[in-house]
Amino acid sequence: MTRLHKSIVKRLQHQETLLGGWGAIPSALSAEIMSRLGFDFVCIDMQHGLLDYQTALSLLQAVDVAGACPVVRVPCNDSAAIGKALDAGALGIIVPMTNSAAEVEAVVRAARYAPEGERSFGPMRAALVHGPEYALAANRDIAIFPMIETAEALDNLEAIASVEGISGLFVGPYDLSLSLGLEPGNNDGTPEFDQALARVLEVCQRKGIAPGVMGNEQLAAMRARQGFRFVVVSTDVTALATALATALGKVRAELAGEEAVSADASKGVY
Amino acid sequence: MTRLHKSIVKRLQHQETLLGGWGAIPSALSAEIMSRLGFDFVCIDMQHGLLDYQTALSLLQAVDVAGACPVVRVPCNDSAAIGKALDAGALGIIVPMTNSAAEVEAVVRAARYAPEGERSFGPMRAALVHGPEYALAANRDIAIFPMIETAEALDNLEAIASVEGISGLFVGPYDLSLSLGLEPGNNDGTPEFDQALARVLEVCQRKGIAPGVMGNEQLAAMRARQGFRFVVVSTDVTALATALATALGKVRAELAGEEAVSADASKGVY
Amino acid sequence: MTRLHKSIVKRLQHQETLLGGWGAIPSALSAEIMSRLGFDFVCIDMQHGLLDYQTALSLLQAVDVAGACPVVRVPCNDSAAIGKALDAGALGIIVPMTNSAAEVEAVVRAARYAPEGERSFGPMRAALVHGPEYALAANRDIAIFPMIETAEALDNLEAIASVEGISGLFVGPYDLSLSLGLEPGNNDGTPEFDQALARVLEVCQRKGIAPGVMGNEQLAAMRARQGFRFVVVSTDVTALATALATALGKVRAELAGEEAVSADASKGVY
Amino acid sequence: MTRLHKSIVKRLQHQETLLGGWGAIPSALSAEIMSRLGFDFVCIDMQHGLLDYQTALSLLQAVDVAGACPVVRVPCNDSAAIGKALDAGALGIIVPMTNSAAEVEAVVRAARYAPEGERSFGPMRAALVHGPEYALAANRDIAIFPMIETAEALDNLEAIASVEGISGLFVGPYDLSLSLGLEPGNNDGTPEFDQALARVLEVCQRKGIAPGVMGNEQLAAMRARQGFRFVVVSTDVTALATALATALGKVRAELAGEEAVSADASKGVY
Amino acid sequence: MTRLHKSIVKRLQHQETLLGGWGAIPSALSAEIMSRLGFDFVCIDMQHGLLDYQTALSLLQAVDVAGACPVVRVPCNDSAAIGKALDAGALGIIVPMTNSAAEVEAVVRAARYAPEGERSFGPMRAALVHGPEYALAANRDIAIFPMIETAEALDNLEAIASVEGISGLFVGPYDLSLSLGLEPGNNDGTPEFDQALARVLEVCQRKGIAPGVMGNEQLAAMRARQGFRFVVVSTDVTALATALATALGKVRAELAGEEAVSADASKGVY
Amino acid sequence: MTRLHKSIVKRLQHQETLLGGWGAIPSALSAEIMSRLGFDFVCIDMQHGLLDYQTALSLLQAVDVAGACPVVRVPCNDSAAIGKALDAGALGIIVPMTNSAAEVEAVVRAARYAPEGERSFGPMRAALVHGPEYALAANRDIAIFPMIETAEALDNLEAIASVEGISGLFVGPYDLSLSLGLEPGNNDGTPEFDQALARVLEVCQRKGIAPGVMGNEQLAAMRARQGFRFVVVSTDVTALATALATALGKVRAELAGEEAVSADASKGVY
Repeated sequence: MTRLHKSIVKRLQHQETLLGGWGAIPSALSAEIMSRLGFDFVCIDMQHGLLDYQTALSLLQAVDVAGACPVVRVPCNDSAAIGKALDAGALGIIVPMTNSAAEVEAVVRAARYAPEGERSFGPMRAALVHGPEYALAANRDIAIFPMIETAEALDNLEAIASVEGISGLFVGPYDLSLSLGLEPGNNDGTPEFDQALARVLEVCQRKGIAPGVMGNEQLAAMRARQGFRFVVVSTDVTALATALATALGKVRAELAGEEAVSADASKGVY
Repeated sequence: MTRLHKSIVKRLQHQETLLGGWGAIPSALSAEIMSRLGFDFVCIDMQHGLLDYQTALSLLQAVDVAGACPVVRVPCNDSAAIGKALDAGALGIIVPMTNSAAEVEAVVRAARYAPEGERSFGPMRAALVHGPEYALAANRDIAIFPMIETAEALDNLEAIASVEGISGLFVGPYDLSLSLGLEPGNNDGTPEFDQALARVLEVCQRKGIAPGVMGNEQLAAMRARQGFRFVVVSTDVTALATALATALGKVRAELAGEEAVSADASKGVY
Repeated sequence: MTRLHKSIVKRLQHQETLLGGWGAIPSALSAEIMSRLGFDFVCIDMQHGLLDYQTALSLLQAVDVAGACPVVRVPCNDSAAIGKALDAGALGIIVPMTNSAAEVEAVVRAARYAPEGERSFGPMRAALVHGPEYALAANRDIAIFPMIETAEALDNLEAIASVEGISGLFVGPYDLSLSLGLEPGNNDGTPEFDQALARVLEVCQRKGIAPGVMGNEQLAAMRARQGFRFVVVSTDVTALATALATALGKVRAELAGEEAVSADASKGVY
Repeated sequence: MTRLHKSIVKRLQHQETLLGGWGAIPSALSAEIMSRLGFDFVCIDMQHGLLDYQTALSLLQAVDVAGACPVVRVPCNDSAAIGKALDAGALGIIVPMTNSAAEVEAVVRAARYAPEGERSFGPMRAALVHGPEYALAANRDIAIFPMIETAEALDNLEAIASVEGISGLFVGPYDLSLSLGLEPGNNDGTPEFDQALARVLEVCQRKGIAPGVMGNEQLAAMRARQGFRFVVVSTDVTALATALATALGKVRAELAGEEAVSADASKGVY
Repeated sequence: MTRLHKSIVKRLQHQETLLGGWGAIPSALSAEIMSRLGFDFVCIDMQHGLLDYQTALSLLQAVDVAGACPVVRVPCNDSAAIGKALDAGALGIIVPMTNSAAEVEAVVRAARYAPEGERSFGPMRAALVHGPEYALAANRDIAIFPMIETAEALDNLEAIASVEGISGLFVGPYDLSLSLGLEPGNNDGTPEFDQALARVLEVCQRKGIAPGVMGNEQLAAMRARQGFRFVVVSTDVTALATALATALGKVRAELAGEEAVSADASKGVY
Repeated sequence: MTRLHKSIVKRLQHQETLLGGWGAIPSALSAEIMSRLGFDFVCIDMQHGLLDYQTALSLLQAVDVAGACPVVRVPCNDSAAIGKALDAGALGIIVPMTNSAAEVEAVVRAARYAPEGERSFGPMRAALVHGPEYALAANRDIAIFPMIETAEALDNLEAIASVEGISGLFVGPYDLSLSLGLEPGNNDGTPEFDQALARVLEVCQRKGIAPGVMGNEQLAAMRARQGFRFVVVSTDVTALATALATALGKVRAELAGEEAVSADASKGVY
């Protein structure tokens, strides 16, 4: 049985570090742009991204024109939402607000066919993409990333990381910060934050699963060096807003005879 | 009080056998094609179909141009999803993964106005289609089909079938097979599978409700002869893929001087 | 810290009476028409309205072209649905079928960032509209209206109204009537109905929160005089259907030499 | 050979007066609302309406759920646009800015199959709706209305009205007024305007074709009494905007203790 | 300089016979189904297909997930329409109603950059798909098929076929039949029809360009044996309608104890 | 009579230099992002942009949420396309491939109401945005930019620039280069190219109209210093692709211990 095309499960098991793009703009065109740039995976964000299932489907079609592995962050830990994302062709899911082993077990059940889980059968577009082999290979080749983004999840980290069937854990630094009583953001240098990341890294490595994290252009390389192996490099919303603001600011500054300053249009967005 | 136009409730009570089409393509045009062909009902699949609410609404509008009764399979047993499907004009609902009498009672509550249930009032398009009469007739004229597709549901079959207000039970052979430890598919000839179908038929007949089943072109007539009275004949995805693959294969074979083989593009899809 | 633009929280606290439009047509054009007419708020109805998230997003963009405060009625009391509506830019939410203090507390948790709640961070379009200030001001400036629309909610009214963080309560007269054993509608003159409204008014006034209600063109002024301060004046579906039916009826009557009668195309719709 | 279902050609020939609605909102829901109210025809406006082909198609599907004849105003006198509108199922077309017999002959050629014209064959949805009979009946049963809306068209009126194959002429009072040097609007009482309308009526009656006109709620009955037999009663944009503005104004006036004034939100729109 | 990926220009020059699917359903999902079945090309029909540019774009994205060459039939011989189809990624265009060498020269000008033509530069998605190489290779690698579908085109056949830059000619049998005074359809056996096809074949072969034709499942192999080398095997509308009608008819016949008859739901469609 | 809100006509007359963004992604969300960044105008590109009318309408609604003037580049010099763009709310139009005074006069006729032109009346959304004043002010406050992008247009420059009613001329450097026998691009330093730009600047300044140009982040300030006063700074497609490619490249380079190179993902796009 061959691997499903573009599955990242084996790459993660082989200790590769994967870099991803993040799609929040509800357009198959922006998704296609992103998917053709060489990212290892592109995640369609159904939680905070400005899109829902029907749009996500068209973005997944766009991602499939090139080599990036299609991943979906589902809006919540709901078996129907997980099933629909997978039937639409996602080969990886990120699930927000999974704070206990029981919640993570529910994720796995929703994403695996019997006997390993209870995913309802009807793979539709996934079978269209992968053929009859899909039914056999799906349980093995779909990556599952529960999110670690609350103090409660940190408390249950050992148990969460021990749940059978997950490919890794995905840290959401903004929510994690809020939950730790910090400002939403990347609070590197703040002990609570640094220790939280360090614990996720340590537990993942010990359990043989991949630590993942929402990053950005400035932090992604550092996160990879810290040991994260499933790292988001940029979101389309931030990239677009920052690039346009920077361009406009630069031109206005040049015309005013001033020094331009790089815009940070993402402030407060994510 | 007259019946709601196209309601199938009375036809089911009168022991008619109804044949249906199944819409999974997110296009009001393919739904209109299907609805004009003479099916007794057309089911819009919001669970495994590649569509969500907004698209389902446009498909329901398309189904209403002709005589087929509009049915929706909701994505899950959720009262909001059931309410939205009915407000959009569905006159029948199929609800997946209903494994206990309590779950089926929740379905009925979600689909019936007080005092028989707790459906929230605001029938919008349904009232547009049916007029003021809708509010009075909806509780009586909307068909409700919980799905029997797990071993657990089989265990609770007697209790499930006894829930007041359901029109029938709808068997999902693929999930049922998986749950019974078989390959996903129609496993006729395998005792566990055959017995499961036989039990559903027997219990439905005894309780005076309609046994329904997901079928296909090859099996539908046999299922009807077995006693199923709400039978899906084909899905649009399978029909389209198989027809195109067969046409192409036939032409290629003719040009190569070979015998053509009928394609089965649905393999693994459903 | 300045108020978020168009927030109605302070206006409600200052005892203003706000009049709103209600959007159920899935079109950003009809929403823009409504938003430019001078309503204090426009509510996009994701429960009974014929639209879902992706459409709601485009309606929210349309509402933002003019001065009305964008409000969303979410389809159900679900934290993901509430989060997505707020991330899309809603500055107020109405939540159906909230029947207990515990359910209302869940609403507040879903709509407030830590430490006041558990809303997941990623304000996307809301941050685009409001800038970095959004993260700081959202907890204070987003209006929250649980619905009172069942006998059970009336039983728990005192406790519900005491939940910290809500801006008011929103009465759904049709469901409330059904739950009280009446016909769905505005049953003014029927003691149970009148008493229910009076109790909501009294409790809200005592607790210092705003009583709100689904109204219509005929009733809205009276409701405001009764003390409701967040009052829906009309829905787009009813306004459109009634206006067109009245126009056609009037012309047909003139041509037939008869007296025209105002249409009430909304009968049974809401 | 039976008539195509809902064709208005024969009704126009039988001197019936038909009243129509006008769809400019890009929503199949508002179109369905309109189509269910009893209009003889509903025209989807691809010229000034806020919609293009893909949306028009979904509106035509919505119009087909009820009895109104589906008509399209194409964006311009272009054979491809006319062909696409007819293939989508329109049984009548209104064509703007047709100022000479040659231009009107081009309209007829575009709307009729050979040998009467040069419409390209591929009736797609029209054949879906009407079956194989469509190919035979289309040339006879599709209504064609060139527009009279410039001084130039008035100059060529006799020749235009003599073109074989048209069902009538459709006056656009706003553009006609502009072209006559008047304010855009209905300039009844102004001699140039009144004479223009009188001439169209006279010529149409003499040629045995139906005079049509863009009307509104106030004027439609008078227009019909003047002899127009294809009369638009209201547009959805105007109906919606006026109804909502009137409702809000009435409630605000009541609360302020003032007399309400009917809104005319259509001012300047059409 | 390498060939543009999936270009069929060289394959046509090498005398290959290419078989194609035809997309008229406005859904990227049905287009993806078609594109994955092994057709050499998939043509998105913007003339009679029920779709326009925005939908065509999403269908082109769907076609690009697999190996079929993306072709567009533009709605008419219009330089803007041709440019937009190519910018969206089409690697072939079919242009209807090209009846003279002058009209065909206009097609080539619209599809080629200077100095060979006047296509406006801005290849957007085409450049996204193919990279900087696109600007250099487009003039060479885009296939151009004017249509031969009128008596006038037949009269001008020699001149049309001599226009520099075209890859072949594409016969539309339905319109050609109408123009020849026959019923719309494939009139094999009727001398005028047979001679027309024979002339196209002869002229194309003599000029070294590919004869193409709209075919169907029954005729495609014969057309290829006649010498057509760019042959449409099936349309999605016909395949779907026929397959579903056949399935339903077969089941109904089995239940009635009758012999089933294959449906021909395409009658009159194309 | 006050100016239409956001009209740039007066600003151009007052010799201001306006900087613009360019929207080619078919998403109202990306358009909203762009419109909130402080550009003087945002142009929705219906020619090479990956969008058509219906999408352009939603982008125009998105642009109207903030201060940028909404401009549309229509797909071609067609009166219907120009009328629809203006009815949708554009306050400026850019018209491609206008090569003679006669073609530019046609543009002005299409964009002005009688007596100055022949624009058809029905301002729909424009009237919704601007109220009754629109009909009076539109002829004065809508900016018209014919494009200079061929050798032929350069030959006719004097006559083109003399056409009454235009606000300026807009240079398309890529097509202009192609037409001059150069590579598509900005060929600064090449005499033919430099002279062409200089001539446009000189003629515009002499005629008192605004010279405009498609620019990019690198060139825009220089273009403004050269005298161009309507300058595009960036397109969304280029900004997004370049930013994401740069981010990914930078992270990959950091991880490989290399120096990052700024991506130029726009190569060949525009």
